[in-house]
Amino acid sequence: MLKSYTKQGTKYGVLELVLEGPAEGNPFAEQWVKGSFSCRGEEKRAEGFYDGDGIYRLRFMPSFAAEYRCRISTSWGETQEVKISVGEAEEGNHGPVRVADTFHFAYEDGTPYYPVGTTCYVWELQPEEVREDTFRSLKEAHMNKLRFCIFPKHYVYNLREPERYPFERRPGAPWTPEDYDEKKLKERAGGSFNSYESLQFSIEEPEQVWDFSRPDPKYFAHIEACIERLGRMGVEADLILFHPYDRWGFSKMGLENENFYLKYAVNRLSAFHNVWWAMANEYDLFSWKRIQEWESNAATVCEQDPYRHLRSIHNCMTMYDHSRAWITHCSIQRIDLYRTAENTDLWRTQYKKPCVLDEIAYEGDLPFGWGNISGEEMTRRFWEAYTRGGYGQHGETYETEDGVIWWSHGGTLKGSSPARIAFLRRIMEENGGYMEPVPCLFDETCASNSGPGAKRDCLLYYYGANRPNMRPFRYPGQTFDVDVIDTWDMTVTNIGRCSGSFQVKLPAKPYMAVRLTRVKE
Amino acid sequence: MLKSYTKQGTKYGVLELVLEGPAEGNPFAEQWVKGSFSCRGEEKRAEGFYDGDGIYRLRFMPSFAAEYRCRISTSWGETQEVKISVGEAEEGNHGPVRVADTFHFAYEDGTPYYPVGTTCYVWELQPEEVREDTFRSLKEAHMNKLRFCIFPKHYVYNLREPERYPFERRPGAPWTPEDYDEKKLKERAGGSFNSYESLQFSIEEPEQVWDFSRPDPKYFAHIEACIERLGRMGVEADLILFHPYDRWGFSKMGLENENFYLKYAVNRLSAFHNVWWAMANEYDLFSWKRIQEWESNAATVCEQDPYRHLRSIHNCMTMYDHSRAWITHCSIQRIDLYRTAENTDLWRTQYKKPCVLDEIAYEGDLPFGWGNISGEEMTRRFWEAYTRGGYGQHGETYETEDGVIWWSHGGTLKGSSPARIAFLRRIMEENGGYMEPVPCLFDETCASNSGPGAKRDCLLYYYGANRPNMRPFRYPGQTFDVDVIDTWDMTVTNIGRCSGSFQVKLPAKPYMAVRLTRVKE
Repeated sequence: MLKSYTKQGTKYGVLELVLEGPAEGNPFAEQWVKGSFSCRGEEKRAEGFYDGDGIYRLRFMPSFAAEYRCRISTSWGETQEVKISVGEAEEGNHGPVRVADTFHFAYEDGTPYYPVGTTCYVWELQPEEVREDTFRSLKEAHMNKLRFCIFPKHYVYNLREPERYPFERRPGAPWTPEDYDEKKLKERAGGSFNSYESLQFSIEEPEQVWDFSRPDPKYFAHIEACIERLGRMGVEADLILFHPYDRWGFSKMGLENENFYLKYAVNRLSAFHNVWWAMANEYDLFSWKRIQEWESNAATVCEQDPYRHLRSIHNCMTMYDHSRAWITHCSIQRIDLYRTAENTDLWRTQYKKPCVLDEIAYEGDLPFGWGNISGEEMTRRFWEAYTRGGYGQHGETYETEDGVIWWSHGGTLKGSSPARIAFLRRIMEENGGYMEPVPCLFDETCASNSGPGAKRDCLLYYYGANRPNMRPFRYPGQTFDVDVIDTWDMTVTNIGRCSGSFQVKLPAKPYMAVRLTRVKE
Repeated sequence: MLKSYTKQGTKYGVLELVLEGPAEGNPFAEQWVKGSFSCRGEEKRAEGFYDGDGIYRLRFMPSFAAEYRCRISTSWGETQEVKISVGEAEEGNHGPVRVADTFHFAYEDGTPYYPVGTTCYVWELQPEEVREDTFRSLKEAHMNKLRFCIFPKHYVYNLREPERYPFERRPGAPWTPEDYDEKKLKERAGGSFNSYESLQFSIEEPEQVWDFSRPDPKYFAHIEACIERLGRMGVEADLILFHPYDRWGFSKMGLENENFYLKYAVNRLSAFHNVWWAMANEYDLFSWKRIQEWESNAATVCEQDPYRHLRSIHNCMTMYDHSRAWITHCSIQRIDLYRTAENTDLWRTQYKKPCVLDEIAYEGDLPFGWGNISGEEMTRRFWEAYTRGGYGQHGETYETEDGVIWWSHGGTLKGSSPARIAFLRRIMEENGGYMEPVPCLFDETCASNSGPGAKRDCLLYYYGANRPNMRPFRYPGQTFDVDVIDTWDMTVTNIGRCSGSFQVKLPAKPYMAVRLTRVKE
């Protein structure tokens, strides 16, 4: 029975229809609610989900500001039809992010989207005050994407037991949370945080402990509240659906349970405009999982998501074949200590998709090489990526007294790179359009911003750690307005107009860029 | 007629026999002097050279402190025999450098040799005061190898005409030095130093200008005086026999002339213990020269040099096949902007020879990417090379008012890396023996110094640009004396003994190393 529904929707917002239905048995597995949403020539189908206590919810994200006709049917034989009026999008809601041309992104309304994001793996499972710090920090840093996991995380610096679990624990299960007392775990890890091996313990037969056919609605409701709030802040939620840092067995539930969980998550979350699907973090660390299983997971998400949200899969040592049709963009972790963002242009030509370098190491001071690069190096990687036609993404791992590390818990940013990254975002938006790499000398990178949508028809040269005292340019018959950009000191110094063959003096410092904006005579 | 000869020689010193002979015709091409030098069971043959004015010289480097029997024969029918007494080596003369095991070097007397060198391409052709500055700088920097060219250099920042030429100019040659007025050349280079193309001009038919069968003895006498003085300072002279930065045609003399010149140079210079033969700088820029010609050049050097001095050939973009039998060690220029010394261990396994990274870019501020890395980066590359079982080599290119740039002219060192390189040399000598790389985590390099000759049986970990706040170690049943080495601040801090599983606190700064010296219980 339809209990209530959104009377006045907004374009790219969430329409929700609430139904009452059977509470007996296992409604998650035994019941369903489906909807068909028509407007103009378009009809979309969406599936609802069971939210506990006999309540079913059916959500939909409209893509037109017009009247929608919604027809609902349920497994218990009800059908109903309502009309919902949809108004213009709320301010700041530009719709889901799409691949705009081969290598870049735009929101559905056409506004370019330049991913400037970070990773806080399980920030949403931290105490409220840490979450509030995270929201504040994201806002201050002008970041517009947050990559995080649905499941809790078991890893060095991540030994605390979560307050809730994504699935119902079976009554009388051969395990209680007390078995994972943090102190015991630390001892088991040998005191050494570098002892990855000692973290390789887990519930042996997770099906005996968890009823994977019964997701905990409150667990998912909390995550969706976080997604929604991020959406209102203009932050994309790049949701990691599976990850291997696990002691509870959520990474080992078996293909059938996996796809059941994915259906639930997608039915519940896909109406949020800012959702992206990250199939895995470090898929290749799931040594027990075959590629066909990942492909089956991906097919489930594709089938269940009527909005075609962005989809990716992230690697540790070996990249997934990003040319697979279901993958919308490359979510890349560097696989070389020395060459990371420098490979962006190679990956572009290899995969013909946008390259988002979701893990280029973390600014910090942890014992591990992936977690202790400098702010300078992080910033350098962002600029390398941008001037090679891709997008670096941030991460931070400074060790703290209270154990709250941005990389995993969120909290407060401490590093020197976020301010520089915000400066780069300002440059990106000021340039507009999309940067395409230009072949050039081996000791510089260069991108051209001449396509449609460019606010500045410009060339952007970047010199990385090199420290030239001058660079010569040869553009016969062309005139430019020339800016010298100090990407570390965050200054843009205009040196006026130059034509033909000219030299630009530079301060023989690292991290300099030169922007040549074409002047129409 | 034997005019004079060394009465009392020294081991590894130069014995010289001076003869008078025909001065008419072309003695360089038409006459010869040969010697056979016997001592104990060894007999070596050496060839002399014409030094002008009817004077021929025959040189020999003895390898025993004992009496040598020297038999001389000449093309004009003279034969003679003398006995020369050879005493112990002069202090500091350890003989020629040899490949000591597969990957390292020792002097002939067994003393380990760790190449810590630099490049000053044509320092010896600069005015005397600059040369004196170079000698002083080399000494202050504790460097023990200098790579330089026999022929003058034509390149950006290298446009001055030399005072002498290596060959006699033909009378009435269709060219005079005034044709290469420096000002004209700079104009021709378009004012832009980056204009490599505009440097591609040269004497068209060098054989019409130069008589390649008549080397200028004074030109070579000057070079040998420089070699000799370097030898007394303990500096190896890594002589570049051919290079492509040329406007006089010395890079285009044709195979027959090349091998004639090589015979002259080797006959003249090989008795100096500190000579190395670098067949070319950037051999692959000789687009007009086939590999077979290089092989023929190498065969000439091998045949003519009785002492088997070290032989190498240096690349620009494409490495020579360093596995060729005549090549004693890999003389490597980095071919990637981001990975240089990081490849040392790969090159070792590829070529099975010592790896000397003769060009890993230059500390400086020139417009070019090869010439403007920081002192920090130069130092980092040295440590990467050392802890991967090879040897970084220095170079410096700070632009100066007077145009004297260390890279090419020598002079005075200005950079921040030489002091750190001297510190590394101190560490190398303190460790003794030879560093062999140890497989380890991807975010550190590690070498072990446990072979014969090691003064310290130690492991050396290096963390490069990473900034760990701690590193864990696991060596069950072993005890170490632990040093934390700040390779940039040049400090060695002993933190006492550690055993088994232990952690070493680090200051979360870049460029740190940890040395674990085994303690025998």
